[in-house]
Amino acid sequence: MSEIVVNLLPLTPAQQERFRAAAPQAEHRFLPRMDINGGTLREGDPAGFDGATVVIGCPTRAHLSHAPGLKWLQTWSAGTDVYQRPGMLPEGCMLTSAAGAYGPAVSEHLFACLLALCKKLPQYRDEQRNHHWTDRGTVKSLRNALVLVVGAGDIGTAFAGLCKAVGARTVGLKRTVGPVPAAFDALHPISELDRWLPQADVAAFVLPHTPETVHILDEKRLKSMKPGSILLNAGRGSAVDLIPLEEVLRSGHLWGAALDVTEPEPLPPDHPLWDVENLILTPHCAGGFHLDVTLERIVDIAVENLRRYAQGEALNNRVQ
Amino acid sequence: MSEIVVNLLPLTPAQQERFRAAAPQAEHRFLPRMDINGGTLREGDPAGFDGATVVIGCPTRAHLSHAPGLKWLQTWSAGTDVYQRPGMLPEGCMLTSAAGAYGPAVSEHLFACLLALCKKLPQYRDEQRNHHWTDRGTVKSLRNALVLVVGAGDIGTAFAGLCKAVGARTVGLKRTVGPVPAAFDALHPISELDRWLPQADVAAFVLPHTPETVHILDEKRLKSMKPGSILLNAGRGSAVDLIPLEEVLRSGHLWGAALDVTEPEPLPPDHPLWDVENLILTPHCAGGFHLDVTLERIVDIAVENLRRYAQGEALNNRVQ
Repeated sequence: MSEIVVNLLPLTPAQQERFRAAAPQAEHRFLPRMDINGGTLREGDPAGFDGATVVIGCPTRAHLSHAPGLKWLQTWSAGTDVYQRPGMLPEGCMLTSAAGAYGPAVSEHLFACLLALCKKLPQYRDEQRNHHWTDRGTVKSLRNALVLVVGAGDIGTAFAGLCKAVGARTVGLKRTVGPVPAAFDALHPISELDRWLPQADVAAFVLPHTPETVHILDEKRLKSMKPGSILLNAGRGSAVDLIPLEEVLRSGHLWGAALDVTEPEPLPPDHPLWDVENLILTPHCAGGFHLDVTLERIVDIAVENLRRYAQGEALNNRVQ
Repeated sequence: MSEIVVNLLPLTPAQQERFRAAAPQAEHRFLPRMDINGGTLREGDPAGFDGATVVIGCPTRAHLSHAPGLKWLQTWSAGTDVYQRPGMLPEGCMLTSAAGAYGPAVSEHLFACLLALCKKLPQYRDEQRNHHWTDRGTVKSLRNALVLVVGAGDIGTAFAGLCKAVGARTVGLKRTVGPVPAAFDALHPISELDRWLPQADVAAFVLPHTPETVHILDEKRLKSMKPGSILLNAGRGSAVDLIPLEEVLRSGHLWGAALDVTEPEPLPPDHPLWDVENLILTPHCAGGFHLDVTLERIVDIAVENLRRYAQGEALNNRVQ
């Protein structure tokens, strides 16, 4: 049986060699579809996918249409909701994610946004653009702040660790509560969201897209947030209802918010949120390959899974 | 002998009581000259200073001219260079600073600016203002970065502690090297600046204004900084020569910089630095009373010094 592994990662020769060594019997096609600097997508020639049994990366629907015999897709993303839609993958095709690769990159981005909001850096940037030397008054500190992390997985745990390192208290909410990692002072089931949201000085949402997480932060919950608190979202844009968000930000009910993900993406140019002063909007850039360590971790996950696949072992990060 | 203590701090009744208790024999005049939210200066009536023997706060020259019998000035600032100029204080007048009060506020501001630069948040703010959903590519992490802190006093040490908490290596430069605080991996004499500057991924200047620190970061040293490194200044604006700074920022030699202090202040509206994309400019706002903890610490320092003064003991934080 001959396996054809189409690998879309931007790899060094040494990294390519690791993939070959993990599955020495397979044919390896290296067709990088993302620049090492991240962001730059190239469509590539879908013919390269002909006969593929394994794809590593995030192919388009056009690519997949050339691989009807696909048996396994290993994404480079942590979220896999796109590939779980009916008809995206052939019947019986296995799907594994790169969950675990994005902890450092996304948590650091979220943490930088949080501190920027605390110190009013977006507002000071606007003053700078106008050449105004204007003091904007009181700021916030994370010391002794209660940081609520909704979705205490890899990214949420890394983010909690950063907050705790600078003096915050951290509470994580999770579907299944297990042992409490050092990054958290406490873990609770996500069903306790309405208990914790009104107490939190910071609420960070790092949730995958599932039917249960769509608009989990709706108008009622947004209005239940503690006055002067800060909202962060870096999971999937669908978690936050953006229509009531504008009001709670403009009214000053929330101190500020940072969204790296929106619904839809990209956010349309005429969307009212672009101009909200106390909102940081970034274009789903927290992850990607913008930090070297992310790609290194994706390679580690994918190489190990390819070895397991070649040897008939159970795959890690299995989604379906 | 009757002492008249003019207190310019914005105080609660309970805090006023602490000052009264520290020097029960003195006359206490509470003439707040700064709003509790910081920033708002009020000139006040200089007649309130008539006969003052002690002033707590930062009086203007006009205020001081009403207090020729001043024996002690306790500033609310960490820097006291303004009051060390000839003719500002009466002959023999003691001068003490609030050094030690600003560690949390200024270090957190610097740290927030540093992370914002690492993650290109100023550039993303500009994109947001233009309603552009544009990925700006690679970012930086503080993990394993070498952070050089030039001026390892209260603020510098607090800043180093934050950087170390998120995985950086920290080296402090100090006039007099003593025991190494936990925040630093190493301390060296400031005479080693030219050895460390070309190696540092981040160079943070937190120096007082003295003849030795004026333009300590001149064109030659700016150009000796490591390519892709980040510069921070939150001590006194005079430490950095702003003329060559524009070039090392625009050329991309530096990844970015953040200045909370400039020379002069305010920075003139037509100064070329306002428009440099990879520069964060804030209006000397890192300190002030923008965090509650700062005022609490100033009160602690001033109350203890007033008690010492009333009891004839040596004062803390003595500058002259």
